[in-house]
Amino acid sequence: MKKKPFILVTNDDGVQAKGIAMLTEIARELGDVLVVAPDAPRSGQSSAMTVNLPVMYHELERSDAFTQLACTGLPVDCVKLAFSQQIPHLNRRPDMVLSGINHGSNAAINVVYSGTMGAAIEGALYHVPSIGFSLCNHEPDADFSAVKAPFRAIVEQIWREGLPQGVCLNVNAPTGAIAGIRTVRQSRGCWRNEFMTSAMPHGNGVCFWLTGEFVNEEAAAQDTDEAALNQGFISVQPVHADMTHYPTLQNLVFKM
Amino acid sequence: MKKKPFILVTNDDGVQAKGIAMLTEIARELGDVLVVAPDAPRSGQSSAMTVNLPVMYHELERSDAFTQLACTGLPVDCVKLAFSQQIPHLNRRPDMVLSGINHGSNAAINVVYSGTMGAAIEGALYHVPSIGFSLCNHEPDADFSAVKAPFRAIVEQIWREGLPQGVCLNVNAPTGAIAGIRTVRQSRGCWRNEFMTSAMPHGNGVCFWLTGEFVNEEAAAQDTDEAALNQGFISVQPVHADMTHYPTLQNLVFKM
Repeated sequence: MKKKPFILVTNDDGVQAKGIAMLTEIARELGDVLVVAPDAPRSGQSSAMTVNLPVMYHELERSDAFTQLACTGLPVDCVKLAFSQQIPHLNRRPDMVLSGINHGSNAAINVVYSGTMGAAIEGALYHVPSIGFSLCNHEPDADFSAVKAPFRAIVEQIWREGLPQGVCLNVNAPTGAIAGIRTVRQSRGCWRNEFMTSAMPHGNGVCFWLTGEFVNEEAAAQDTDEAALNQGFISVQPVHADMTHYPTLQNLVFKM
Repeated sequence: MKKKPFILVTNDDGVQAKGIAMLTEIARELGDVLVVAPDAPRSGQSSAMTVNLPVMYHELERSDAFTQLACTGLPVDCVKLAFSQQIPHLNRRPDMVLSGINHGSNAAINVVYSGTMGAAIEGALYHVPSIGFSLCNHEPDADFSAVKAPFRAIVEQIWREGLPQGVCLNVNAPTGAIAGIRTVRQSRGCWRNEFMTSAMPHGNGVCFWLTGEFVNEEAAAQDTDEAALNQGFISVQPVHADMTHYPTLQNLVFKM
C-alpha cells in the first residue's frame, strides 16, 4: 500500500450524525483524518455554496492524527474550506475525500440533489480520489455495522488503485444482507407529488412542505443502481461533473 | 408553429432582477406566462431544495395571460411548486421552463453550482423543454438588450423542434458583439483560491467569504463553451442529469 493518506471526511447530515461517526472510524483505521462537516443537517443541498454570508467553523477536537471541525456552511463549503489551506494549524492538503455515510439513498436522480455527493464531486474537482457513501435507511439511528467492512474495502481499493481525474464514486448500500458489490449506471427517475400543503395561521392560506414519491423510470433495467440495490447489492456509480449530453451535440444547430 | 405555450419563468437572482425581466418579456411575446421566482437572490444554489422549512409564496400579479409569484424557496423549489398544481387558481401545467437570464456566466463547471441551471434541469425532469440563459456580466445593471433577439430565436426553435426527453440547454452569451451561436460541450475547469478571510470581533479569529478564480483546464480546446464565449459566440450546451462516467463503468470491479 502507498503512504498513509490524509483523509477529509464530511457529510450532509451534520457532524453529530451516526453515519459520519462510522465513516470517521473507517478513515481513522486507514490514515490521518480531518473532519470538516456541517454543524447541523444540510440534506438536499446538492452543490450549493454559501454565497452571501461568511462561513465559520469551531474546533471540536485537534491532534496530529485527528482534527474535527463543525462548520456553519454547506457540504461543498466544507470541502472548499478544507482545501483552502487557510485554517490555522492545518496546512496539509487532503489526499482523499470521503463523504457520508448518508442516512438515505443517493441512487438514481438523488445524486443530483445530494449534499453528500455535492461534497464528493467537489473532492474530484480538487483532483483527489473522492467517494460518497449512503445507506438506504434515512432513520437517525440507522444501523451502519453491516456496511463497515465493504465500505472500508472500497476505500482501500480506491486509495491503492486511484480513480480517473475528475471521477468520484456514488456508493449506496441496501438495508439487510449484502449480496456483493456492483458497478452500475444511474437509473433514470424523478420525484412526483412533491408537496404536502399545510395551513398557515391568520387565514394566510397554505404553505408547502417537501415530500414526494420516487419514480424509477427504468424499472425493468438490470444494469442500474436501483436494480443492484433491489437485488441486495451495494451499487457503485462512477460520477463526473461533465453534464453535457453528447448525443444531442451532433443534432442541434442554431442559426442567427 | 404549435399552440401557444404556457411558459414557466424562474431564475436564481430573484424576482426583481433585471435578467428575469428580459426573459419574462421574451416569454410573454410567445405565450402565456407564469413567473415563480425566489423573493431574493439565491445564487450558487445548484439543485438544492428547501428540506426542513416550508416553502411559501406571495402573488405579485395575476391575469389569465400573466401570473407572477415571489417564492421563499430556492430555484428548484420554484419549479417543483409550479408543477405541483397545488397553487390555488393555477392548475395549468407548464409546457416549457425558461430560467434566467442569469447575471454572470454558467459555462464550464458553473453549470454544477448554478441555481439557474438547477431550475432548468428540474424542468427537464418534468419532461418539458427547458432552457437556462446567462449573460457573462454579473453586474445588477447589466445590459441585456443585445441578447433579446438571439435568446428569443432559441426559445422559438426549441418550442418548434423540442428536445430529447431529459435534456435541457445551458445557454451563455458573451458581453459585446455576438458572432453567432455554437452548440458546444462543457469545458473542464474548477475554482481555486476560493476564500477571502476577514477578522471577526472579540478575538474570535477569522471567517471565510467565498470568492476565487476560475481555472479553464482545457484552454486550448476549440469545441467547448469557454472557447465559444471567448470568440464572441453564444454557447449552447445540451445538459442532462445522468452524471454516470461511462468509460469508468467498464474498468471498475470490486470483490467482497
